[in-house]
Amino acid sequence: MGQGEQKFRWVGTRPIRHDGADKVTGRASFGADFSLPGMLWGRVLRSPHAHARIRKIDLSAALAVPGVKAAISAADLPEIPARSRGSSEGPVDFADLSRNLLAREKVLYHGHAVAAVAATSREAAERALAEIQVDYEPLPVVLGLDEALAPGAPILHEGLRTRGGPDHGPTNVAGRIVFERGDPEQGFGQADLVVEREFRTQTVHQGYIEPHAVVARTDADGQAVVWCCTQGPFMVRAFSAAVLGLEVSQIKVIPSEIGGGFGGKTTVYLEPLAILLSRKAGRPVKMVMSREEVFRATGPAAATHMRVKVGVRRDGTLTAATARLCYEAGAFPGSPYQAGAMTVFAPYRLEHLFVESLDVVCNKPKTTAYRAPGAPQAAFALESVLDEIAQSLDLDPIELRLRNAAREGSETPYGPRFRRIGLVECLEAARSHPHASAPLGPKQGRGVAVGFWFNAGMNSSAELHLNEDGTAVVVTGNPDIGGSRASMAILAAEELGIDVQRVRPVVADTESVGYCDTTGGSRVTFATGMAVVEAAREVVRQLRERTARLWGCEPEQVAFVDGRCVPAEGSGLDHDPLPVAGIARQAARTGGPISGQAQLTARGVGPGFGVHLCDVEVDEETGRVQVIRYTAIQDAGRAVHPSYVEGQLQGGAAQGIGWALGEEFVFDEAGVLQNPGFLDYRMPVASDLPPIDTVVVEVPNPRHPYGVRGVGETPIVPPLAAVANAVARASGVRMTRLPISPPRLLEALLQRAGDRAA
Amino acid sequence: MGQGEQKFRWVGTRPIRHDGADKVTGRASFGADFSLPGMLWGRVLRSPHAHARIRKIDLSAALAVPGVKAAISAADLPEIPARSRGSSEGPVDFADLSRNLLAREKVLYHGHAVAAVAATSREAAERALAEIQVDYEPLPVVLGLDEALAPGAPILHEGLRTRGGPDHGPTNVAGRIVFERGDPEQGFGQADLVVEREFRTQTVHQGYIEPHAVVARTDADGQAVVWCCTQGPFMVRAFSAAVLGLEVSQIKVIPSEIGGGFGGKTTVYLEPLAILLSRKAGRPVKMVMSREEVFRATGPAAATHMRVKVGVRRDGTLTAATARLCYEAGAFPGSPYQAGAMTVFAPYRLEHLFVESLDVVCNKPKTTAYRAPGAPQAAFALESVLDEIAQSLDLDPIELRLRNAAREGSETPYGPRFRRIGLVECLEAARSHPHASAPLGPKQGRGVAVGFWFNAGMNSSAELHLNEDGTAVVVTGNPDIGGSRASMAILAAEELGIDVQRVRPVVADTESVGYCDTTGGSRVTFATGMAVVEAAREVVRQLRERTARLWGCEPEQVAFVDGRCVPAEGSGLDHDPLPVAGIARQAARTGGPISGQAQLTARGVGPGFGVHLCDVEVDEETGRVQVIRYTAIQDAGRAVHPSYVEGQLQGGAAQGIGWALGEEFVFDEAGVLQNPGFLDYRMPVASDLPPIDTVVVEVPNPRHPYGVRGVGETPIVPPLAAVANAVARASGVRMTRLPISPPRLLEALLQRAGDRAA
Repeated sequence: MGQGEQKFRWVGTRPIRHDGADKVTGRASFGADFSLPGMLWGRVLRSPHAHARIRKIDLSAALAVPGVKAAISAADLPEIPARSRGSSEGPVDFADLSRNLLAREKVLYHGHAVAAVAATSREAAERALAEIQVDYEPLPVVLGLDEALAPGAPILHEGLRTRGGPDHGPTNVAGRIVFERGDPEQGFGQADLVVEREFRTQTVHQGYIEPHAVVARTDADGQAVVWCCTQGPFMVRAFSAAVLGLEVSQIKVIPSEIGGGFGGKTTVYLEPLAILLSRKAGRPVKMVMSREEVFRATGPAAATHMRVKVGVRRDGTLTAATARLCYEAGAFPGSPYQAGAMTVFAPYRLEHLFVESLDVVCNKPKTTAYRAPGAPQAAFALESVLDEIAQSLDLDPIELRLRNAAREGSETPYGPRFRRIGLVECLEAARSHPHASAPLGPKQGRGVAVGFWFNAGMNSSAELHLNEDGTAVVVTGNPDIGGSRASMAILAAEELGIDVQRVRPVVADTESVGYCDTTGGSRVTFATGMAVVEAAREVVRQLRERTARLWGCEPEQVAFVDGRCVPAEGSGLDHDPLPVAGIARQAARTGGPISGQAQLTARGVGPGFGVHLCDVEVDEETGRVQVIRYTAIQDAGRAVHPSYVEGQLQGGAAQGIGWALGEEFVFDEAGVLQNPGFLDYRMPVASDLPPIDTVVVEVPNPRHPYGVRGVGETPIVPPLAAVANAVARASGVRMTRLPISPPRLLEALLQRAGDRAA
Repeated sequence: MGQGEQKFRWVGTRPIRHDGADKVTGRASFGADFSLPGMLWGRVLRSPHAHARIRKIDLSAALAVPGVKAAISAADLPEIPARSRGSSEGPVDFADLSRNLLAREKVLYHGHAVAAVAATSREAAERALAEIQVDYEPLPVVLGLDEALAPGAPILHEGLRTRGGPDHGPTNVAGRIVFERGDPEQGFGQADLVVEREFRTQTVHQGYIEPHAVVARTDADGQAVVWCCTQGPFMVRAFSAAVLGLEVSQIKVIPSEIGGGFGGKTTVYLEPLAILLSRKAGRPVKMVMSREEVFRATGPAAATHMRVKVGVRRDGTLTAATARLCYEAGAFPGSPYQAGAMTVFAPYRLEHLFVESLDVVCNKPKTTAYRAPGAPQAAFALESVLDEIAQSLDLDPIELRLRNAAREGSETPYGPRFRRIGLVECLEAARSHPHASAPLGPKQGRGVAVGFWFNAGMNSSAELHLNEDGTAVVVTGNPDIGGSRASMAILAAEELGIDVQRVRPVVADTESVGYCDTTGGSRVTFATGMAVVEAAREVVRQLRERTARLWGCEPEQVAFVDGRCVPAEGSGLDHDPLPVAGIARQAARTGGPISGQAQLTARGVGPGFGVHLCDVEVDEETGRVQVIRYTAIQDAGRAVHPSYVEGQLQGGAAQGIGWALGEEFVFDEAGVLQNPGFLDYRMPVASDLPPIDTVVVEVPNPRHPYGVRGVGETPIVPPLAAVANAVARASGVRMTRLPISPPRLLEALLQRAGDRAA
């Protein structure tokens, strides 16, 4: 099979997902659902300071509390020396990871883990936490980008130098990246209009429903088994081994179902602690975060401060653009500042551009990936400026984007040229969608925005076992965060020509399948799906071989068509077709079990583009914004299971709307989060949103056997700008700072009224 | 690597087994150790009659007991019509299996399962069992071979006809097999001495320490997950699916550690009941047999009645032999009567032979495989006769056997010729062993016996995943009953040239590895080991390919030596050797994860021969026999982990000694087992046995990459005869009926004294 105009039997259909009944009936087993006999409860002591030196930690009184079986602090982890930051490193700094798991020299944010205990009850563990003596030397708190970048700012990490930048001595700027092309000044000189604006976005959280949870058991020989909720069981294994000084084969990770991750479950918080506690206590240890702990010490997504400048001719042709982006990394380096820089101008053809992006540490929890990390913020800035340009030049905002849209052969800001992409097709679908021309009422406005995400390939493995009755098991190592079990089963069923419900998709543990990189980067259906297709083709090869043995001919004389082995054309053979089940039943006498396996580093990633249309109505008396219509349009390459593609579009849009309108970490001056719960951290609920309409465009990715592109992340990129642009057109006020919450919009409306009155 | 005189780095060494620490510290998790939240307890109602027609089963009162959530009888299983027995069938009759799980038309033995319940507590389940109303019509009991074969005997299965025999109407003879060669009468005519004797062996039990245990969960979509203690997770899946009318992909089986099986855990008793109860109750169900249930309703090994006749020349050359064997099948057909017929004369070259063997049903629990099923009984008969011949002709018993021993090219009684075998080498090792010539004291005697077992190949799958730090995981689907984890790791380490402790051997569930036939037939180290070797060679192929990519050359220019890729001779390349770990670390940029997989039907099984020497001392006042020295000699082909080969030899000898001297099912006239517990069913304990010396002979199997032969079953074949022969020589009384328990030997001694007096 390949892409193009083929007819598929399963690809593009909507079978009920294999894990559906269990999930809707509440029987699926999530992180906290697992228990072991004799299990202890682990709890974490967290810092009451946002910035302080640790003089001493004394665990002895805690260990004396009845029921307490183990207590640990950073002294129990092997010390990984903090490398000279700023030097070239791998993607993960285990010195930092270790210090984020358990603070060593300093605590760097309020809620930073300092120690952990395991006891026979939660109550005993809590009592023990209260007995841990920590001697802190409080330090001045650096709460955000402005404070961190101010001259003479307190320094979080004394050894930190700017990676990718000149060495000016100790700094809070952990990294800098620059992309440039042509001569922006010359480009601005050719422009009829130049718009330059400054934007700020807030700290938001991934807001997954399921808190982090783990059970770890360490066997007598030091082998650890870890049950946990994660996007990456192989990541948990590798990271835990690295910070604990173990071999990866000493740790087995069994992933549970996952109640949301969105990038926030691509690192470890509890797992190495639970392993260490179980090793010390000689008993299994369970740890489950409270919602408050999730908010104070995991995630969040980076806050930003951005300045974007765009030049344009009267006809709408962009002549130049520059962007200066600052991303908050939180306590340790590692914000998505590079992705921000790479994505900000990617959707558009630009002869002249300059992007600089900084990674800045401050006394907040270390940021973690959040769906298309770094891109929504940057798109918010650029797409707001483009909307203002369209308004100023009286151009249709879709037309403006179409005129400048990247297409096959366009150079990306970061180097390579795009292969076949679907941005133009998405913009055309937007233009012709009824939503684009629907009339608007008073106080209503319509926003348009484009979003881009690379999508990832990386490493995947898959196995396909044909059972003796012709049913099949397809095994991968990627937790199913968006319906990927169904996609894997569909791809296997399509290749094998058997009913999709006769394929059982399995998410295996780290010892039962080859290495799989983390579920993330919108890579699973693309890359792991590619491995499934390869494994299935290996099974088909074996099916032809087995049939040849049964027919006494050569495998080349056997063709595989629609799930059956048939005599190949010109083979001169005359046999009845042999279905998969028939071959499976005879496997034991034709060479043994039939299984296929594939491992690959997926090449040929297909970038994803989306266009969102958003209508809002603004209540000028309260500042409240109501989204009244929303359409998300995206190129999926090929929608393997359209319902889950649509679900990704809807979910991304919903999260983006929340980011635009309501979600926000509120810190006090001491760096203490004031709203660590879903009551005060306002995520959109069903009643806040209209039904989100979707259009799935299919411009097949030429380098995937079914044309698949990743789809999970792009949908969160446009909404921030789409909502803000709609608000600007509905109210006449352009909000450059998120969230556009009622008090903030009301203040802007009153300000404008005051300006007009003056 | 191949066999011969190679030096191995790991094969033949004795690393600490990977699961050792957990097992000796009690942390390993066996069948009954698993639990799930909300779990119910299942219990089985068992028949109080050994033979009765079931008129009616009424579960309604049981269902009304508080806490009871489900109750089932045969009516809840799909009815699989009892096929016309005697017709050609597959190896498993699911009509019978279903009826053994839950009696349908009849109960056929005391303890036969009739119904099952699941309730919130064991107590509630027990109360419910008492409320089940079963209307029985008792039938006459057929207790053993004599009763079953008597003219006019009550018939257990009205539709039963003799498979492989003439149809004389309803019968208790379920099967008959005959092997013949030459003209035995002519052979006996050439003999100087003909000895014909009759033997009986008793019903014994496999006596595994761990009772059968299972937890089953059925998900909302009908998918079942089964945790259980079994030798064959894929067998549990297939058998459960067959009797429940499910697809195999609807059942996932996760094997626990196993506290002994010895063939007794190669079928299902509880698993389908637990699945069905969990499906009905909507909750997980746990079932654990009591020891009494294990004795009354599982296992046992077949009792026999045998007549063997051997002709021999004065020089010890055998001229002809005949055997008529009857095996008790228990309630349903399926004793190892065929294996008995095939093995009885296999160790010896015989120009003229005749063997007839019968499978006879009676009102006892259905027999199950027990270590070399069928062979120990037959060997007891033949080797006893040979010993009597050696005594009569004043020949050394080892010399007698050497003179007639099968060797390469000898025809087996069942057809094919032996390839390279090690019987002669074992006999020579026995002859030169100090034990063979050690002096004996008064009332002491020395017995010699030979044992043979085919060993099995069958279907195996294996996977080998190379981790990113150069450690490896080797995955198979065969529960580890005798140290096979260590063997799998050794074979993988040998092929990959890495430290055996850096290989993690894993026994996976049925969804995480390709199909593997049951752990049994001494096949795991041979066949699954072969799959591991193939998977490892696939990994080595990939390692060379990846290295070629790194070196910019062709894979053919890269050789793999001692765990490192090096430039091949004549390649003209100059590179430092690249160890496995170095290649593994770079896998993500040379093509992705590195894993190998293999599936095969193992060919080239190497038969196993053993020779045992046994010294006993007989207390003529009590009839007690004390084994005072024991040596087990066996051809292992190649001992991958010699400690576990020795362990198999010792374990088989211990079980065989128990069979010879003490173990015995005692039934009353109504067919009720009188000794269903370890206090009354006397298995040998440590104080009953001397240290068992072992000699591992290595005559490599030419058709295995490391020369491996199965070793687990052969060691139980010689002891019955070795002990009886020793007793005969110590006491002058030849015991032809087992066990040689003190009362029985005393009776024989008194009888002899009486005979002498008379």
